[in-house]
Amino acid sequence: MSETSSEKGKVALVVGAGDATGGAIARRFAAEGFVTCVTRRTAEKLEPLVDQIRDLGGVAHGFSSDARKEEDVVALIERIESEVGPIEVLVFNIGANVPCSILEETARKYFKIWEMACFAGFLNGREVAKRMVARGKGTIIFTGATAALRGSANFAAFAGAKHALRALAQSMARELGPKNIHVAHVVVDGAIDTEFIRTNFPEKYAQKEVDGIVDPKHIADNYWQLHRQTRDAWTFELDLRPYNERW
Amino acid sequence: MSETSSEKGKVALVVGAGDATGGAIARRFAAEGFVTCVTRRTAEKLEPLVDQIRDLGGVAHGFSSDARKEEDVVALIERIESEVGPIEVLVFNIGANVPCSILEETARKYFKIWEMACFAGFLNGREVAKRMVARGKGTIIFTGATAALRGSANFAAFAGAKHALRALAQSMARELGPKNIHVAHVVVDGAIDTEFIRTNFPEKYAQKEVDGIVDPKHIADNYWQLHRQTRDAWTFELDLRPYNERW
Amino acid sequence: MSETSSEKGKVALVVGAGDATGGAIARRFAAEGFVTCVTRRTAEKLEPLVDQIRDLGGVAHGFSSDARKEEDVVALIERIESEVGPIEVLVFNIGANVPCSILEETARKYFKIWEMACFAGFLNGREVAKRMVARGKGTIIFTGATAALRGSANFAAFAGAKHALRALAQSMARELGPKNIHVAHVVVDGAIDTEFIRTNFPEKYAQKEVDGIVDPKHIADNYWQLHRQTRDAWTFELDLRPYNERW
Amino acid sequence: MSETSSEKGKVALVVGAGDATGGAIARRFAAEGFVTCVTRRTAEKLEPLVDQIRDLGGVAHGFSSDARKEEDVVALIERIESEVGPIEVLVFNIGANVPCSILEETARKYFKIWEMACFAGFLNGREVAKRMVARGKGTIIFTGATAALRGSANFAAFAGAKHALRALAQSMARELGPKNIHVAHVVVDGAIDTEFIRTNFPEKYAQKEVDGIVDPKHIADNYWQLHRQTRDAWTFELDLRPYNERW
Repeated sequence: MSETSSEKGKVALVVGAGDATGGAIARRFAAEGFVTCVTRRTAEKLEPLVDQIRDLGGVAHGFSSDARKEEDVVALIERIESEVGPIEVLVFNIGANVPCSILEETARKYFKIWEMACFAGFLNGREVAKRMVARGKGTIIFTGATAALRGSANFAAFAGAKHALRALAQSMARELGPKNIHVAHVVVDGAIDTEFIRTNFPEKYAQKEVDGIVDPKHIADNYWQLHRQTRDAWTFELDLRPYNERW
Repeated sequence: MSETSSEKGKVALVVGAGDATGGAIARRFAAEGFVTCVTRRTAEKLEPLVDQIRDLGGVAHGFSSDARKEEDVVALIERIESEVGPIEVLVFNIGANVPCSILEETARKYFKIWEMACFAGFLNGREVAKRMVARGKGTIIFTGATAALRGSANFAAFAGAKHALRALAQSMARELGPKNIHVAHVVVDGAIDTEFIRTNFPEKYAQKEVDGIVDPKHIADNYWQLHRQTRDAWTFELDLRPYNERW
Repeated sequence: MSETSSEKGKVALVVGAGDATGGAIARRFAAEGFVTCVTRRTAEKLEPLVDQIRDLGGVAHGFSSDARKEEDVVALIERIESEVGPIEVLVFNIGANVPCSILEETARKYFKIWEMACFAGFLNGREVAKRMVARGKGTIIFTGATAALRGSANFAAFAGAKHALRALAQSMARELGPKNIHVAHVVVDGAIDTEFIRTNFPEKYAQKEVDGIVDPKHIADNYWQLHRQTRDAWTFELDLRPYNERW
Repeated sequence: MSETSSEKGKVALVVGAGDATGGAIARRFAAEGFVTCVTRRTAEKLEPLVDQIRDLGGVAHGFSSDARKEEDVVALIERIESEVGPIEVLVFNIGANVPCSILEETARKYFKIWEMACFAGFLNGREVAKRMVARGKGTIIFTGATAALRGSANFAAFAGAKHALRALAQSMARELGPKNIHVAHVVVDGAIDTEFIRTNFPEKYAQKEVDGIVDPKHIADNYWQLHRQTRDAWTFELDLRPYNERW
């Protein structure tokens, strides 16, 4: 496509490509000509995704990285920048939703949910932003959820992490926008078509037949459109939900 | 374009096509194959826009209509539906921002701003929604502003109208989404490239050189993308602002 | 009470004293030493409230006024200021919640709900604010509802009016705060103990036994506390809901 | 005072009583008859506050506790409950605002700000909530800030922590309200009259003469009023700001 030829060889990094959403985003940016780097804790598990992208004629690299560890993140970004190329797009897509009564929530779990869903976003966002600011361009997209806007009963840990991630995104958008870095936050509200939903919420999953759960491909379409926006009209935040979702 | 062939002959109605934004949206939907109907109070003023769309190979019809008058709106929608075709997309784009101290605001102006920026949206939205629901599909997009989210000093009238319009959009989205009607609200935050800004805010307008004011074409791009979203992943709200806007 | 002696002879105006909430607020300010002026469309209906306040040793005046008519409002405020005394506190308490599908909503009803729940607030707020600003002090409190923050399905009219009223309150607070006028907005979320709820929602009303519906007296307590706040720590907005309300 | 006699012997715990706000809240609850327990990392620093409360005829106990350490918090709550009495009110008042560009923010500082301003709130809130739920009553108030609602440039860490704390408060309010526990969040927007502001922002501090900075005593008044609310009309959130603050 004419609009994508200019993306050839540019690098898109998807942190948290272990789920359906991260995978779909990676495939989409690869299809648009990006060299796509994908990470999760265990690199072997990324092989099917990397193979899939390559089979489709794309370029992909899988990296093992603990996104919660500063040394790991610093080293990974450094390595990608020097070995693969300048990162043009960062998508941070790690979640960790485990509901629990506040009365039963453990300190360990409360911390881990924040560490995965927020702290890792800070580490990756900061490291990539440093390079992008030096180059004067780039796109950073954080995957949010309803819990970013509302603290429901039994969701103190997840809502806390997602609220904090949104605050990070907003603060970065305000600081880095004028430096030509597009920071966005996407609120996905509704079940996504994943193995997890299929197995654990079969009634919800049955909604798939009437388009009642979100197809990761369509999340990816919106991330792609965010990246393509011209800088006179950038979106910070948009929501995505099935037409029949109650909200 | 392949993705647009399916739109051939469908009708897009832009209510409030008198400004740069409405014009750009009309041109965009026309370029995608829509028969584009545009309205403003004085139809003659629409002629340049209609001519322009026709010159580009599009199909356009201009209608004089007072969007605040129920009889006018009912008659216009009826006429378009019977003479032109089923309305697939409605864009409501009338604004009326005249700042004033609350101490000086007149009842007449407070009322008129609401009538134009909100009541007209209700009338047009309701009339079109009735047809769309009967057909089981359609897209309705309301143009919002920062004032939809924040009541600043001296903006009681405009903020009131825009808050009310957003409430209308949200209520319609919640009621009509499950009926397969996509209702969206776009928050444009920042100066738009218009004659008004050029004349009255030359310093702001000078920002155009560095992409610091919004190009109506790019607003139109986003409206188009909203219309194209699949129903498993609809956006209700997104914001649009220049990269260097303070917010 | 020592804290209230200083209020002796000051005027509190409650616009929309026809319901339980307005009545309770009037009684509370009267009990604190205020000369309390209460209005509704038919003055005779105010007699029981006025009598009740007088029986309790308070001073009260009932006024017939159509709060939606500019001439009426201007004349009433003028009359109270010249005949009764300077208005120190204004409470705007008119609501008009009639749910309806957007597809069935009439222009007349949509307009009337806005006219009562928002436009009347503008008229009364502006007229009183003019005097307060001239005197450099005063308190204006608007009664809000959940619909001020959320446009639910079938609530386009009411949510629109309440959103617009909140925008009015916010805009006034930002403009008039620095002029020493305290403007506040109270979001009542939940059923209030009224005849209407008792008759129409008996199951809800049964919650009264376990404090599950709001006692108007307690709304009044909070309005009183808002008025008493020192100006270094003013509240613009607070919510009130029963402990067991779902939200 | 008649309304406070019923509070005699009840325990109020103020976590983070090291600053002016925590101190004022402790004094206020002590003045109302509460046995007031105050904590900070170094207990000796609490002596002046404890002495002051005792001099005024109140009962106060100072405790050294690292509010970020689960063992410390569990042990402290256990000790207070067994040695002093059942905790009726918990105020969580620890902040940690150190602005920084996202490009310079260290992982250590980002973590510590969250640990102090949010994680400690979770630990204390959970431990106290367990006891309150068993007894079927209690009040928990979290001190918030503008940063709880908005992620400004250079405030990623603080805004993240405060957003997460608000999500915690909201989630707890929704879960525990029906169990008769009143959870509230107070958004203090503006400079507070503290040594820190006096020393570092003398121009801001000069606003004190015209009531332009918040007196901690008045914050305490509002916490007290929140505690006194009847359960049919509880506030989850209110904001507090000087009349002349820009917002």
